Amino acid sequence: MVKRAEPSTRHYDEKLQQILRTSAGIFAEKGFHRTSIRDIARATGMSLAGLYYYFRTKEQLLFLVHERCFLTLLQRWEKTDDPKEDVRVRIRNFVENHVGFFLHYMCEMKVMSHEDESLTGELQDKIRNLKRRYVSVLMDLIEELQRREGGKALNLRVATFSLFGMMNWIYTWYNPKRDAALPELIDQLLRIFFFGLPKGAKLQEPWLTAAPVKQGKEAFSLWQKLP
Amino acid sequence: MVKRAEPSTRHYDEKLQQILRTSAGIFAEKGFHRTSIRDIARATGMSLAGLYYYFRTKEQLLFLVHERCFLTLLQRWEKTDDPKEDVRVRIRNFVENHVGFFLHYMCEMKVMSHEDESLTGELQDKIRNLKRRYVSVLMDLIEELQRREGGKALNLRVATFSLFGMMNWIYTWYNPKRDAALPELIDQLLRIFFFGLPKGAKLQEPWLTAAPVKQGKEAFSLWQKLP
Repeated sequence: MVKRAEPSTRHYDEKLQQILRTSAGIFAEKGFHRTSIRDIARATGMSLAGLYYYFRTKEQLLFLVHERCFLTLLQRWEKTDDPKEDVRVRIRNFVENHVGFFLHYMCEMKVMSHEDESLTGELQDKIRNLKRRYVSVLMDLIEELQRREGGKALNLRVATFSLFGMMNWIYTWYNPKRDAALPELIDQLLRIFFFGLPKGAKLQEPWLTAAPVKQGKEAFSLWQKLP
Repeated sequence: MVKRAEPSTRHYDEKLQQILRTSAGIFAEKGFHRTSIRDIARATGMSLAGLYYYFRTKEQLLFLVHERCFLTLLQRWEKTDDPKEDVRVRIRNFVENHVGFFLHYMCEMKVMSHEDESLTGELQDKIRNLKRRYVSVLMDLIEELQRREGGKALNLRVATFSLFGMMNWIYTWYNPKRDAALPELIDQLLRIFFFGLPKGAKLQEPWLTAAPVKQGKEAFSLWQKLP
């Protein structure tokens, strides 16, 4: 009798990646509650039994989509960030990481915007903690910028969530065929956030435009090995 | 035999208002697809037959929620706007109208953000047209501001949807117990949009802070008579 081999970690991870990407697409299109495990099975070409090898419930699948996105964003950020850099450069890097990630993963962006309340209990708590950790990265940077400038500062929550709002709203209007490519989009968002309208367009700031070449598709693989 | 009297227009309108508000709350909480007409009946204390007097399908109910919001926003805007004013004041008025409306109608804001794709066919077309009309009001103002300033301008779509993003993201983070009250919130959003961080906090611009006293609850009645 041949003993059934356990799939290798690598194979397991690739398969899971494929399942999560496909599921995010279906959740984004139909909504979490209207999606059935059968829909996932059909779209991935897997059997129900095969799917249950990767997750136990539909809610856990949604959790995995969220978790993988936040962990990837955080991990990419930690790789990119250099605390010795000018804080404005660090904010620019954060925006590049966030917008770059989501322009390649618009379905995930929509799911994370729409479905975080579909998680409950412990799974919800875990994602909220990850989200808090992620939000506090940007909030700390903005606080540092404001502290450095001294004097009267804008409300930290309004400032932080305004920038998140500018970035996270993109999936509702952005059309890759019609709108600016990623580096220009990021440049424009930063000009508004740092200098406002109409002055933002006119400034030449080396730290603003000298974006590192990191926007290739490859660099945004969601599915790099996670910690 | 007593002929059953038709409800008066006023009574009809008040009842419809109540149904739409209640429905927006349930759609926001459960999502459109998981809400049943029975849920609406239970929450409004009306019979199914009574409800069908006001709408024929659940989709039409969702349409009415959207339509009422856009028409109210547009109608309030037309009342407020004075094309002879400084364009920055007009943008401020637009933001006051938009954010003020939605801070009082957070459930509607969430429904409009999440459920516009739940509409189909003619109902979807009608709402998309209203939305386009509404978006173009702000886009035209921003274009005018940029034209007036001359020189290099920021991409109009990025600028317009950045401001919408800042405003429409509010429902995801705003906590009335913790965060600034409406006039301060609007002031801060405008400072970021017009002057950016960190300069925005420091400016004293009369046109920026001289907000008309219009933020009372009363002024934001969703249910004024519509055209």
